[in-house]
Amino acid sequence: MATVSSPTETEQCIESLIAVFQRHAGRDGNNSKLSKAEFLIFMNTELGAFTKNQKDPGVLDRTMKKLDLNSDGQLDFQECLNLIGGLAITCCESFVKSASGQK
Amino acid sequence: MATVSSPTETEQCIESLIAVFQRHAGRDGNNSKLSKAEFLIFMNTELGAFTKNQKDPGVLDRTMKKLDLNSDGQLDFQECLNLIGGLAITCCESFVKSASGQK
Repeated sequence: MATVSSPTETEQCIESLIAVFQRHAGRDGNNSKLSKAEFLIFMNTELGAFTKNQKDPGVLDRTMKKLDLNSDGQLDFQECLNLIGGLAITCCESFVKSASGQK
Repeated sequence: MATVSSPTETEQCIESLIAVFQRHAGRDGNNSKLSKAEFLIFMNTELGAFTKNQKDPGVLDRTMKKLDLNSDGQLDFQECLNLIGGLAITCCESFVKSASGQK
């Protein structure tokens, strides 16, 4: 009863999101914040599907500024998660729309 | 160049979170909202590690009420994601604390 069971799908997601964030944030030695350069690498490698069709080169700059709630020029995990959560909500809504015949 | 590449770790998480939500929300036929009963099953099966040590039987009731921002008695994906995001932030902070010697 005190054994550690294997993580559920949701727990695995939580672990993965933290691990990916820390891997990218740790490029400069401090794995608790994404610098601007780290954020750009994160976006292009992890969320390339969302960035590759952007014609406007300033969009990532503006995204970073918008996410950086405390304006320290870096993104902590919570600030970064706001982006991932927002994308997930948009994806979920578009699934629902396409399932209901794109009303 | 127009091929579909395999999803990244972050994209897989987004997909999983949506799939798990819809699987649980769909028990009563409407996969866009978790009813109270569906929320309890979701919490106990997906996030059992967080619920099994709760001595207070009212905690899940209160959690649902707190998450249900529009007070419709159900949780949509965004409301549910606020919980998962909150747990992820708490986990991430505790990793950082333990890595820095539990200051």
